[in-house]
Amino acid sequence: MAKNCSTQSVATAVREYEGVTRKHAIGEIIRSLRLDRPDVVASFGEDAAVIRQGENGLLLAADGIWNKLMEADPYWAGFCAVLVNIHDIAAMGGEPLAMVDILSFTDDQLMAEVTRGMADAAARFNVPIVGGHLHPNTPYNVIDIAILGTARLHEIIYSDRAQTGDAIIAAIDIKGRVHPSCAMNWDSVTMKEGETLRTQIHVMKGLGEDNLVTAAKDISNPGVIGTLGMLLEMSKKGAIVDLHAIPMPDLHEHGITFEHWVRMYPGMGFILTSSQEHVDEVCRRFRIAGMAAQVIGTVTDGRELTVTYQGEKTSVFDFSVDGIIGIFDGCNQI
Amino acid sequence: MAKNCSTQSVATAVREYEGVTRKHAIGEIIRSLRLDRPDVVASFGEDAAVIRQGENGLLLAADGIWNKLMEADPYWAGFCAVLVNIHDIAAMGGEPLAMVDILSFTDDQLMAEVTRGMADAAARFNVPIVGGHLHPNTPYNVIDIAILGTARLHEIIYSDRAQTGDAIIAAIDIKGRVHPSCAMNWDSVTMKEGETLRTQIHVMKGLGEDNLVTAAKDISNPGVIGTLGMLLEMSKKGAIVDLHAIPMPDLHEHGITFEHWVRMYPGMGFILTSSQEHVDEVCRRFRIAGMAAQVIGTVTDGRELTVTYQGEKTSVFDFSVDGIIGIFDGCNQI
Repeated sequence: MAKNCSTQSVATAVREYEGVTRKHAIGEIIRSLRLDRPDVVASFGEDAAVIRQGENGLLLAADGIWNKLMEADPYWAGFCAVLVNIHDIAAMGGEPLAMVDILSFTDDQLMAEVTRGMADAAARFNVPIVGGHLHPNTPYNVIDIAILGTARLHEIIYSDRAQTGDAIIAAIDIKGRVHPSCAMNWDSVTMKEGETLRTQIHVMKGLGEDNLVTAAKDISNPGVIGTLGMLLEMSKKGAIVDLHAIPMPDLHEHGITFEHWVRMYPGMGFILTSSQEHVDEVCRRFRIAGMAAQVIGTVTDGRELTVTYQGEKTSVFDFSVDGIIGIFDGCNQI
Repeated sequence: MAKNCSTQSVATAVREYEGVTRKHAIGEIIRSLRLDRPDVVASFGEDAAVIRQGENGLLLAADGIWNKLMEADPYWAGFCAVLVNIHDIAAMGGEPLAMVDILSFTDDQLMAEVTRGMADAAARFNVPIVGGHLHPNTPYNVIDIAILGTARLHEIIYSDRAQTGDAIIAAIDIKGRVHPSCAMNWDSVTMKEGETLRTQIHVMKGLGEDNLVTAAKDISNPGVIGTLGMLLEMSKKGAIVDLHAIPMPDLHEHGITFEHWVRMYPGMGFILTSSQEHVDEVCRRFRIAGMAAQVIGTVTDGRELTVTYQGEKTSVFDFSVDGIIGIFDGCNQI
């Protein structure tokens, strides 16, 4: 960790990062779209919705790519569109089955690059794209993907079940590079074989089957701390996190600061909570798959996410005042 | 049918309609994204992909809304985004389970109108939106939805199984209006109760269960003839269609021509093929649900879609020369 890093500077960097603030608008959408049905076990706020089907859960998620990334690197945007969807299913302990895409393009050249990225990622993870919709000749470039997965109902991992006293584990593949087209993306995937990537993704399914974690989320645009914040908001808990423990590559070598690192989207990363007795086994499984995994903190009974470093201590989010996704403002948990 | 209508003018209107021509780019996408997996029973070219799950099929589809419609009427765009997705599942004889959305918005006012339309449609069809993704403050407005459905595998209705000699049936709810914001949309839905709409959608499921049709598609942007063209392309068949038989409202009253009518997107419409012995029962079921249903032609062994009117005869598409979606150019059926 860089010497000039302070808990205050990290807290501010995370709190004001666009990847975090742009999540605020979600709460309002949720309130207007909500429709209760008995077969819907989980919906908004989870990485994937869960639809009951006997003893099984069908997992359904959707994710799109920021226009900024699309403009910066269409191949990587296509690759990421698949990657984030597969993570949505993996984070729930599910098995991804198939994806559908909706593409809107200004020109054919860009479309070819995006679909090349999508096809590469789909092949490496061995999850087929089975249909979708195309808007050619639109005045904008958008790629949206939805994914279907499955898991046994009692093996599904949710984000809202972290328990007070649980260890917080961050698991990240730190063998990678700052993506040359996008400084906020840690690319640990484009240089890896499909088998390696599938093994990493598969760790989550095993953790679900053996009931080793209480909650999890894949680390997405809000970064390590922002994603943990969303998990805590869902679980109605707080946490204390030791910044020093967050797995990280050699920052100097990659020319980035710690404030930068904690906000990055890692190609392969999960935040998990588990009872203290399972910590070693959880970390061991990620390490076998080639990922760094560390306990970075503890779940608390409060509603604050506090970060510490060398005795210094700062509150990043106070969920009793305002949430990240605002999912509990005016509606019960859904 | 208007007196000045000719088969030639209808053929040209359909062939050159943007709703039809914009489908051409799909073939290339399909070829680059294709990835075979044994559990994928059907994918591109069908209204929904079919994933095998024991005796059951999971149906997955995605559809978005043209930016033109989004700009013309955000409420109707939101309503339609849900409507077209539910039709994708219904056309396969499936039961819609849940939807996820991906929203990109320039401003909150527009977002509120779109989500109001989505929520209204979701409530009337009783299919919940269970999650998704939001891009706030994008420089464009896009709404994409994906839908999950289910059906018993042997009851699924595909588009690629029309048989030579089958009757072609068009079933459309003609009790509606030209949508005030969008002249190419026939709105038969916003003024109807949820129960009526659910009964209409449900007809398809019954036809699948009783194996009464050989192929079907919901009538989408390419209109009655364009949608039939896509079904024939999938089935590698031709057809001869009597324009006079296409169900239509009082065109004079609604101030539209027949060329206009055949290109319209009807809020509730299906194209089906069935063996002659089942025609009466198929039509009877749609009529009970309040829809007009007529035999409009016959499936032929050729590769041409020909329309006739009062002895006049014109070829609209010749699939041996070029397809609408080009799904068979360079790859086998998938």
